[in-house]
Amino acid sequence: MGSQSDWATMRHGAETLDALGVGYEARIISAHRTPDRLSAFAKGAEAEGFEVIVAGAGGAAHLPGMTAAHTTLPVLGVPIESAALSGMDSLLSIVQMPGGVPVGTLAIGKAGAINAALLAASILARGDADLDARVKEWRRRQTEQVAETPSDDAGAK
Amino acid sequence: MGSQSDWATMRHGAETLDALGVGYEARIISAHRTPDRLSAFAKGAEAEGFEVIVAGAGGAAHLPGMTAAHTTLPVLGVPIESAALSGMDSLLSIVQMPGGVPVGTLAIGKAGAINAALLAASILARGDADLDARVKEWRRRQTEQVAETPSDDAGAK
Amino acid sequence: MGSQSDWATMRHGAETLDALGVGYEARIISAHRTPDRLSAFAKGAEAEGFEVIVAGAGGAAHLPGMTAAHTTLPVLGVPIESAALSGMDSLLSIVQMPGGVPVGTLAIGKAGAINAALLAASILARGDADLDARVKEWRRRQTEQVAETPSDDAGAK
Amino acid sequence: MGSQSDWATMRHGAETLDALGVGYEARIISAHRTPDRLSAFAKGAEAEGFEVIVAGAGGAAHLPGMTAAHTTLPVLGVPIESAALSGMDSLLSIVQMPGGVPVGTLAIGKAGAINAALLAASILARGDADLDARVKEWRRRQTEQVAETPSDDAGAK
Amino acid sequence: MGSQSDWATMRHGAETLDALGVGYEARIISAHRTPDRLSAFAKGAEAEGFEVIVAGAGGAAHLPGMTAAHTTLPVLGVPIESAALSGMDSLLSIVQMPGGVPVGTLAIGKAGAINAALLAASILARGDADLDARVKEWRRRQTEQVAETPSDDAGAK
Amino acid sequence: MGSQSDWATMRHGAETLDALGVGYEARIISAHRTPDRLSAFAKGAEAEGFEVIVAGAGGAAHLPGMTAAHTTLPVLGVPIESAALSGMDSLLSIVQMPGGVPVGTLAIGKAGAINAALLAASILARGDADLDARVKEWRRRQTEQVAETPSDDAGAK
Amino acid sequence: MGSQSDWATMRHGAETLDALGVGYEARIISAHRTPDRLSAFAKGAEAEGFEVIVAGAGGAAHLPGMTAAHTTLPVLGVPIESAALSGMDSLLSIVQMPGGVPVGTLAIGKAGAINAALLAASILARGDADLDARVKEWRRRQTEQVAETPSDDAGAK
Amino acid sequence: MGSQSDWATMRHGAETLDALGVGYEARIISAHRTPDRLSAFAKGAEAEGFEVIVAGAGGAAHLPGMTAAHTTLPVLGVPIESAALSGMDSLLSIVQMPGGVPVGTLAIGKAGAINAALLAASILARGDADLDARVKEWRRRQTEQVAETPSDDAGAK
Repeated sequence: MGSQSDWATMRHGAETLDALGVGYEARIISAHRTPDRLSAFAKGAEAEGFEVIVAGAGGAAHLPGMTAAHTTLPVLGVPIESAALSGMDSLLSIVQMPGGVPVGTLAIGKAGAINAALLAASILARGDADLDARVKEWRRRQTEQVAETPSDDAGAK
Repeated sequence: MGSQSDWATMRHGAETLDALGVGYEARIISAHRTPDRLSAFAKGAEAEGFEVIVAGAGGAAHLPGMTAAHTTLPVLGVPIESAALSGMDSLLSIVQMPGGVPVGTLAIGKAGAINAALLAASILARGDADLDARVKEWRRRQTEQVAETPSDDAGAK
Repeated sequence: MGSQSDWATMRHGAETLDALGVGYEARIISAHRTPDRLSAFAKGAEAEGFEVIVAGAGGAAHLPGMTAAHTTLPVLGVPIESAALSGMDSLLSIVQMPGGVPVGTLAIGKAGAINAALLAASILARGDADLDARVKEWRRRQTEQVAETPSDDAGAK
Repeated sequence: MGSQSDWATMRHGAETLDALGVGYEARIISAHRTPDRLSAFAKGAEAEGFEVIVAGAGGAAHLPGMTAAHTTLPVLGVPIESAALSGMDSLLSIVQMPGGVPVGTLAIGKAGAINAALLAASILARGDADLDARVKEWRRRQTEQVAETPSDDAGAK
Repeated sequence: MGSQSDWATMRHGAETLDALGVGYEARIISAHRTPDRLSAFAKGAEAEGFEVIVAGAGGAAHLPGMTAAHTTLPVLGVPIESAALSGMDSLLSIVQMPGGVPVGTLAIGKAGAINAALLAASILARGDADLDARVKEWRRRQTEQVAETPSDDAGAK
Repeated sequence: MGSQSDWATMRHGAETLDALGVGYEARIISAHRTPDRLSAFAKGAEAEGFEVIVAGAGGAAHLPGMTAAHTTLPVLGVPIESAALSGMDSLLSIVQMPGGVPVGTLAIGKAGAINAALLAASILARGDADLDARVKEWRRRQTEQVAETPSDDAGAK
Repeated sequence: MGSQSDWATMRHGAETLDALGVGYEARIISAHRTPDRLSAFAKGAEAEGFEVIVAGAGGAAHLPGMTAAHTTLPVLGVPIESAALSGMDSLLSIVQMPGGVPVGTLAIGKAGAINAALLAASILARGDADLDARVKEWRRRQTEQVAETPSDDAGAK
Repeated sequence: MGSQSDWATMRHGAETLDALGVGYEARIISAHRTPDRLSAFAKGAEAEGFEVIVAGAGGAAHLPGMTAAHTTLPVLGVPIESAALSGMDSLLSIVQMPGGVPVGTLAIGKAGAINAALLAASILARGDADLDARVKEWRRRQTEQVAETPSDDAGAK
């Protein structure tokens, strides 16, 4: 999902899905440059076997909302940090959907890509006890890795 | 163009087109609730004889941009004033289009609806000397109607 | 989910769940005034049989994120429109979660409450073909109800 | 159109016009430093043979709106990304025109410059079938160039 | 200065000038609807005997900046509170002038209109000892009128 | 602290102090209209026996910061909701103090006034076990009053 | 307080406490990744002997507010400058607490960390005359170090 | 006026005054760190012979407003671009003054510093025909220096 330039952000989501052992397919679909590819994909996604769709887009970010317009699969949106407005335009374009067509929106940028993967895994885990265990284990390890006290040596940010 | 609730704003554009003697057709097309109607309309608009498309939408306003994705006709966008964010979400969702698919964006709300009509008329007037004269006359009268000094009696705004 | 004053918004979500035939339980849990109720609920929700959690909150809206911190169930957040900042504070407090703890965020206010219900239903529909059919039917009817042309008589907004 | 420092942005529009085979003339006109040049140009542009005017400006960006005040030619505005406020000041100064004097506004920065050129070409193409064919071909190639899947090697952004 | 609808705000400035015994002339000049009236006025203001110009405008507020482009008299700008964006667009359109053409900008709305009058009076008072005394007396009375303790009966705001 | 028009907000803080049995004195001090009263008060506050200062102000809200400049007593700031910008100007004017002169800032409006009182009480409670018990009791009752489930009859907001 | 990546900011607070001779303990507690550590710490902090808690967090910054939910000790919050939104999300997530649970919020970033330390010291100084003297001396020296005139050689910022 | 770190911005104003042959004195006065120096300066400025005061400040920028509180001389404010919020906090803290105490506010950063100098010169020129001629000459040269067409070689911005 997303365009080539969004991959720098979205690959963090892909890596998270890899770490959780969730299969996925990454495609470039531009709402504006390839609108027919978008509607064809979104209409056929359920039949193709997709269960959750994660869509990342920036600026006037129409990909997640237009995907949701064509499917009743859960659609998660990741606002890409945009050049001028730091992703505030992306965020509002994705999250402010009208009542009737939902997009579950995550944070701007890398954190959002990771969390879209985690939320997708949580959704899939409703019907997959093994995945559920892997998600819980991932979260447990994350909790363990938080140090008790700050270190002056650790590279910040 | 727009949804029923947007008509309160967009009718100001329709009235302006009436005043300028420009024919038009007002349709409700929801990018999210009727995405197929949107793509069918946008793809066929040129063949139907439309020359300029004005699209008003609010919130995560995808109608103008998705229309522009399906046609090379000039598309003008009017950000409807939204409930929570006063149309800032509508504005950014419409104006921040990526390079390659343009939407000429007007002001939030009523002023934008009027100006979309005026700009559409200016575009059509490139090939219609009579309309060009009517646009110039409309602008001339507007200029004349600006009083020289303020009046305490006039209802403000 | 949410506090009493948030019910004016969240009831739109409850009504949507009713319309879709999805069972739910509405509770008031304040992240700040009842933090122990929050952690007890969130830790026990999966064992209680909850499958998706919808949390609405306003201002410094910590309820969705803190719920997500205590569970791996999918958590959806609804930013309540706040008094001074129109829900922009609620939105940022909910959506800008750090990588590792996801909250799927919907639009500010009523549209968000409706969409949280729809997204929850879509998630539950992954394992419930009957619900899936009801969701699709709900969306189909929504599409049908969009008029072709605007009416001057219809109450706007 | 614009000032020398805006050329870094506006040249992307010029290059797009070149690619589409649209003749144009690039001038520096400062609304604030050369207001007489602005009014002389805008008043005489139609007689000079201009058909569409593209104006880029930043900060308190008055060039597009003041140009539109002096002509009924279609005027398109490009908000230049400003130093402190990232072009939000430019955008609002251009797009929030009062009813009666329209400026079709594009995105902040490079994308806006490209899209102003494309929208200008679409306007001119109403009366020029050859140009219309070139615009459609440009858009078709753009669609074709969107890859199907992301590549880790492609330089992002 | 300003348009008829701005008079509800600007009259507070006029009343302040009355209270200070400063002569003034209130005119309606629209940057966009009467651009020639604007340039004629601004170019001739110094010869007409104006010493300070106060310009109020809303939305894409170009009046103060374009006035300043045509004169070296001190120009003060008052951002009118706009319908959708509460005057933030007016403020940025007035205050973010490029280096070389200054506009001294006051607060959004009524407070700004009052303060433009006070600042104009302070400027004129540099060469008018009587006016200087009246300004100082006005400020002294303002200070005296601040009560020591709040009253539950006083109408707030 | 604050001006008469701010009392509508600040009285909520006064009532909270009453409920907690904390003595206080409410004064009107305008940073801009009575700057000498401000500096005299702030310099003498510690000698007068004040232990914590709560200052509410709106717009270009300088009262809290200028009070903090003249004393080392803890100063708490309450941003009053302003007419045009909803208190965002008040908030930034109070909270963005440079390193070296602290103001502990609370939420915009009524919630901030209540919380300034609570935080002041918490500070005073460090050296007053009785007050500490009253603060804990106040918080305990607040927790108890949160209903378990929403009621359709309760007045929202 | 804070996470490892926040230490680059929060260490300025630690250094300020060192300079004032105030003992402290720096811990990493993540509201989202270690919610149980957070509640255990916050509930036990008073018994452990803490008198003031300073919490720094970024993005959807829930740490200060959730800490305040579990204790009646004074809690001060430092908004960390976030990647996409420059700390505006952090600020609103911390400062916009609902009435009943206060967090005294300082400026975004380094200045906020320094000022949280100073405000904490001022609070502790209510019951510690020696500390009070050190705080006053620190402030006095700060005042002295402000040069009378700018120097072209001094490193700016 | 301003602090040492603001000099990088304010020196552009000083250079503009030099170019116009206007005498001035640059002092560092911190509203928060040297409040007594501020009130002493502002109260005595008129007696010292100052005719216009230019004050630059950043963040919670109280210097211009507090200076204006102590004098009836014209006070001009320059918002310094701040670290986290790009000067939006500085701008609102300076421009949103309450009715009764005016500060003429210029643009954020370098452009504002230059324009404060130009506006100060315009004010002084009311009573100084030689200066008036120099201001007009400066503006005339500025107009002349605007090239007619953009150059690819010129260093942009």
